[in-house]
Amino acid sequence: MKQFMDQDFLLGTRTAQELYHDIAEKMPILDYHCHIDPREIAQDRRFDNITQVWLGGDHYKWRQMRSNGVEEYYITGDAPDREKFQKWAETLDRAIGNPLFHWSHLELQRYFGYKGVLGADTAEEVWNLCNARLREPDMSARNLIRRSGVTLICTTDDPADDLRWHKDIAADGTFDVQVLPAWRPDKAMQLEKPDYPEYLERLGNSAGMKIRSFADLKQALKARMAFFDSMGCRASDHGLEYVMYVPAGERETEEIFARRLAGEDISREDQLKFKTAFMLFAGAEYARLGWVMQLHYGCRRDNNTAMYEKIGPDTGFDCIGDAAPSGQLADFLNALCIRGALPETILYSLNPNDNEAVGTVMGCFQEAGAAGKLQQGSAWWFNDHKEGMTRQLTSLANLGLLGNFVGMLTDSRSFLSYPRHEYFRRILCSLIGEWVENGEYPWDRKRLETIIKDISYNNAVRYFGFSLEVK
Amino acid sequence: MKQFMDQDFLLGTRTAQELYHDIAEKMPILDYHCHIDPREIAQDRRFDNITQVWLGGDHYKWRQMRSNGVEEYYITGDAPDREKFQKWAETLDRAIGNPLFHWSHLELQRYFGYKGVLGADTAEEVWNLCNARLREPDMSARNLIRRSGVTLICTTDDPADDLRWHKDIAADGTFDVQVLPAWRPDKAMQLEKPDYPEYLERLGNSAGMKIRSFADLKQALKARMAFFDSMGCRASDHGLEYVMYVPAGERETEEIFARRLAGEDISREDQLKFKTAFMLFAGAEYARLGWVMQLHYGCRRDNNTAMYEKIGPDTGFDCIGDAAPSGQLADFLNALCIRGALPETILYSLNPNDNEAVGTVMGCFQEAGAAGKLQQGSAWWFNDHKEGMTRQLTSLANLGLLGNFVGMLTDSRSFLSYPRHEYFRRILCSLIGEWVENGEYPWDRKRLETIIKDISYNNAVRYFGFSLEVK
Amino acid sequence: MKQFMDQDFLLGTRTAQELYHDIAEKMPILDYHCHIDPREIAQDRRFDNITQVWLGGDHYKWRQMRSNGVEEYYITGDAPDREKFQKWAETLDRAIGNPLFHWSHLELQRYFGYKGVLGADTAEEVWNLCNARLREPDMSARNLIRRSGVTLICTTDDPADDLRWHKDIAADGTFDVQVLPAWRPDKAMQLEKPDYPEYLERLGNSAGMKIRSFADLKQALKARMAFFDSMGCRASDHGLEYVMYVPAGERETEEIFARRLAGEDISREDQLKFKTAFMLFAGAEYARLGWVMQLHYGCRRDNNTAMYEKIGPDTGFDCIGDAAPSGQLADFLNALCIRGALPETILYSLNPNDNEAVGTVMGCFQEAGAAGKLQQGSAWWFNDHKEGMTRQLTSLANLGLLGNFVGMLTDSRSFLSYPRHEYFRRILCSLIGEWVENGEYPWDRKRLETIIKDISYNNAVRYFGFSLEVK
Repeated sequence: MKQFMDQDFLLGTRTAQELYHDIAEKMPILDYHCHIDPREIAQDRRFDNITQVWLGGDHYKWRQMRSNGVEEYYITGDAPDREKFQKWAETLDRAIGNPLFHWSHLELQRYFGYKGVLGADTAEEVWNLCNARLREPDMSARNLIRRSGVTLICTTDDPADDLRWHKDIAADGTFDVQVLPAWRPDKAMQLEKPDYPEYLERLGNSAGMKIRSFADLKQALKARMAFFDSMGCRASDHGLEYVMYVPAGERETEEIFARRLAGEDISREDQLKFKTAFMLFAGAEYARLGWVMQLHYGCRRDNNTAMYEKIGPDTGFDCIGDAAPSGQLADFLNALCIRGALPETILYSLNPNDNEAVGTVMGCFQEAGAAGKLQQGSAWWFNDHKEGMTRQLTSLANLGLLGNFVGMLTDSRSFLSYPRHEYFRRILCSLIGEWVENGEYPWDRKRLETIIKDISYNNAVRYFGFSLEVK
Repeated sequence: MKQFMDQDFLLGTRTAQELYHDIAEKMPILDYHCHIDPREIAQDRRFDNITQVWLGGDHYKWRQMRSNGVEEYYITGDAPDREKFQKWAETLDRAIGNPLFHWSHLELQRYFGYKGVLGADTAEEVWNLCNARLREPDMSARNLIRRSGVTLICTTDDPADDLRWHKDIAADGTFDVQVLPAWRPDKAMQLEKPDYPEYLERLGNSAGMKIRSFADLKQALKARMAFFDSMGCRASDHGLEYVMYVPAGERETEEIFARRLAGEDISREDQLKFKTAFMLFAGAEYARLGWVMQLHYGCRRDNNTAMYEKIGPDTGFDCIGDAAPSGQLADFLNALCIRGALPETILYSLNPNDNEAVGTVMGCFQEAGAAGKLQQGSAWWFNDHKEGMTRQLTSLANLGLLGNFVGMLTDSRSFLSYPRHEYFRRILCSLIGEWVENGEYPWDRKRLETIIKDISYNNAVRYFGFSLEVK
Repeated sequence: MKQFMDQDFLLGTRTAQELYHDIAEKMPILDYHCHIDPREIAQDRRFDNITQVWLGGDHYKWRQMRSNGVEEYYITGDAPDREKFQKWAETLDRAIGNPLFHWSHLELQRYFGYKGVLGADTAEEVWNLCNARLREPDMSARNLIRRSGVTLICTTDDPADDLRWHKDIAADGTFDVQVLPAWRPDKAMQLEKPDYPEYLERLGNSAGMKIRSFADLKQALKARMAFFDSMGCRASDHGLEYVMYVPAGERETEEIFARRLAGEDISREDQLKFKTAFMLFAGAEYARLGWVMQLHYGCRRDNNTAMYEKIGPDTGFDCIGDAAPSGQLADFLNALCIRGALPETILYSLNPNDNEAVGTVMGCFQEAGAAGKLQQGSAWWFNDHKEGMTRQLTSLANLGLLGNFVGMLTDSRSFLSYPRHEYFRRILCSLIGEWVENGEYPWDRKRLETIIKDISYNNAVRYFGFSLEVK
């Protein structure tokens, strides 16, 4: 029997152990998609206690606490931090097989040196130990990033954002990890939202203009893209219900936009037309700028109205959405392709059943210019566990070239989430190690070293166009 | 090589063996959902031969016989029982990897003491052995239940049912296993059925009233719920095409109902509106009564018209239905939640592809009041095998708290189906044993004992609110 | 560690090795569905070099080269064959886990005696070795078929085809492998295609008549079916978007057909009605003739318009299509069943998520007359790998009778694809070997031998009605 989460955690074969410890473990981290607040890096944030770090904003953990019947008072309410931590520890006692059980213990091991098992009975010990550690200087935001071997971070930013914290970080010679903005224009596209006009005004202000038409909107966005580009931006990101393709002419799109500004209700069909036009514009601009287009879709948000009204969005009430038609995804990519305007694109569906359809759609648009121009993103959100990653890696390997995969990202708000890269690399090495030991892939150290280094780090470096390759 | 279905059947690791034999095997059985006829318990039914037990009503087996090209004469027709048994034995010879192969041999081992392999060549031997055993007194319905370690059974009953057999059983001091009704009001909801008006009359009679409006229907159902509650009912159950949410006002719902009673055709859209209203009413009542709401959906029934006309429903002609929208499921639960009227709910989709969507929808409505208020039911019907259970357990563990899972049920019409609980527990222990031996979960006997006892039995006891907990 | 793709490739247990080497390996091959050009057999085609064999028409490989960022010039363009081969070898270096990595090496081992690893560094060596071998006489089309142990091949042919090459082969006493036509009437059904009228003229000519109505079309098809039948045809095949069921009366169908011939646009709904009528007609004819009906569906073709315009169909731009409703599939089969006109049917969905729905739909229409009258086809196209085959076999075993499965086919255009049968058999033996060694199925050599022989070969022989059984 293997010890609980020891050095060979998830590494089932000797080959997996060798690939991980000799190669993968030593590679730096390029975290090309996360939700970290750049201000916290700029100000080198410190934390008072482990509840603040772990339970301050992590809706993954909140969900599980609710699944354990915990009162909201101990989750997002006013309970004392020590009591909240206790409730979380009790929840972990029921969380066998859940990735949070692994992530929590990885973080305890890597950042706090705790090798035990967190549960109701050890919560007091862990509470004291973590809080003592958090007072030490190497536990600031920047030091956590440094210690984790991160070379570059892409945050997630609104087009109207002034990126002042990015400027501050770039100007500060004492921190040599690159922190770049990534472009997330969801608000500029979601015309069905009640506050859309206010958003347009804010966006217009940031671009020094008034937005009175879709043409204006595009002009404003172009101006902001130029600014983001000047700040080192290399990636865009969209949160979509699904990748839609309901084409409309320019005039019709302008009409829909005008009706929206006039306060009229926009039909579902017209919303899709507007969004299709928006995405075609955006994709073409990304292609022109050489940015990567990331499409996150298949999520249905804010399903619990009562809780939404109490505590707002991103609090743990989202689910996998209804089926995403592969036909519209293919037609959207095709429309960009015909125009010669298809950027490098990473597709993330929240529905693991989409793995195979996505893998085959991608294959229809691969072309010269990049190795793996179309990518399937690493197992996202609800799929970010051993099973989900293994399914994604296996599907990708079956349908495309796993060797060209750009690999892992944290998608996190926390400075303690870098072990998710470790988790991914262990699973990757485990899978490949098994293939090798089963005689399904040759034991060829050089070939394997290249593959492991590439998927862990170098493929992403090349794909996004940074100068950070590790030989 | 392990022996065929020996004591360590499905228990791949030493830890799995220990967890199963020391803990899971010793727990009693709470069979909270089955289709046993209470009359057969009340009358302590005996069986003449193994064909009667196995092939009298088991459409799982009938399907496989048809898959083997067997004439209907030997399945539901008038062939002699010995010949039917031979055809079943021949079918087993082709059923490698099928759960019926396992279930049949588990039943032969546990109830008949037969350790061999049933096939065309051994059919005669097995036939004689089983029939001899069936003549012994410990093979009556009640004794089979007792020997299987069952503490409580929930049957499945129509609201119009007088529950006379439940009364008889409860009044009989010689049988100490609780046999409780469960509420299944499908007929009261299926207004599209030709015999709906007759059913309403029957239901009205049982409630001592005439049903002339939807309001009347609700009143009648409430009266019957009160009766069921007084008989110890703790669970309801619905068979739905999918969990729909097409809301309508009270007036519109009454109008649809009135048109149906007037003999008009009801459009698909209006059927969905009526059913949504029905389910919202029902769910709120269950919440009030503290009953569990079970939703079985994703099944398309009676696909073979010719056979339906010959031998009726539930004869082996059902299939997995078209995609069930997670959005409507979420909206339905949300609508109850807003009203403060969401009961404890168990979701069973017949489509294994729904596992992940269901797991994430549940997470949106978990709340204080119960550990695991929303549950994903154990792998149902066509998924009731090693693969299906493992998928369900793994998905549940990844997305929620496996430790709070209410576990297995037989869903069966037979008194020999209790080894399905054994089958489930072996698979559960195998999965958890593997995690422990791989270092993915700590080897901590106390923690594991709690988890295994809870999922095998205690969670269901607490969830349904029975006083049967095993320390 | 096992050696790379040695004799026990994919055979993880001793039982698997025994089942494969003693039984499966020795069975002949019945390739009941492929896309080989019968002319190449008739003329006993030879190949100049390995690029011609491997990259001349294999869009599976082309896709992966595009995924590696290779210029089209080296794929379908005018680059020298040696350079194309180099690009393919470089692509293989990134293809870890892909079935093409396995297939390529199986072909290198079995036909060229090369045991190394093909990659950028060994491409020159492999190029020379392969081309030398290709000059030897045993590498002609016929000899490749003979050496592979093939007893019978079904090609894929248009109803208007004169089958002259089949006649030539049949008349040639020097080649004793049967090469039979299979009926693929897609063009006769796709009334939405611009060249439909021209096709009808060609079809009419082949039947010696003018096609002016749907009744004419049916008459012409019947005439051609009689001809195909006289040429030994036993199987039909359809490529469908999905298995639709939108019934219409005869008059309405004729009207739709008439409007199409008059050059009008046919609505999507009417297309589905026409196609439903077409399929009902076709299915009934197959039942009458005792032909097998194969339905391939779930594919969305030609998604990349720019490439389609450059290099046409079947060049690597297809993907898994949107969800196929199980309800329409069931209704279509039911409609044939009611008429007493349901032929033996093999269902192939391109979407692996359909496995379970298909498995349960099949169960609704199994009946006396054939063991496994309804079949789920072997993992098709994008699913034709270890994972996909294991999923299909497991789902089939769980839901039906694996022992009656008709097994593998190449679906290939190449004479080097027969090792796909080997690949399948290794995976089959691996799966069954694991069940046996885990005690999930008895170690009973006789029983297992029957099962392995049947799935490898004999079931297909019986199902299609050939006189080729191996005892």
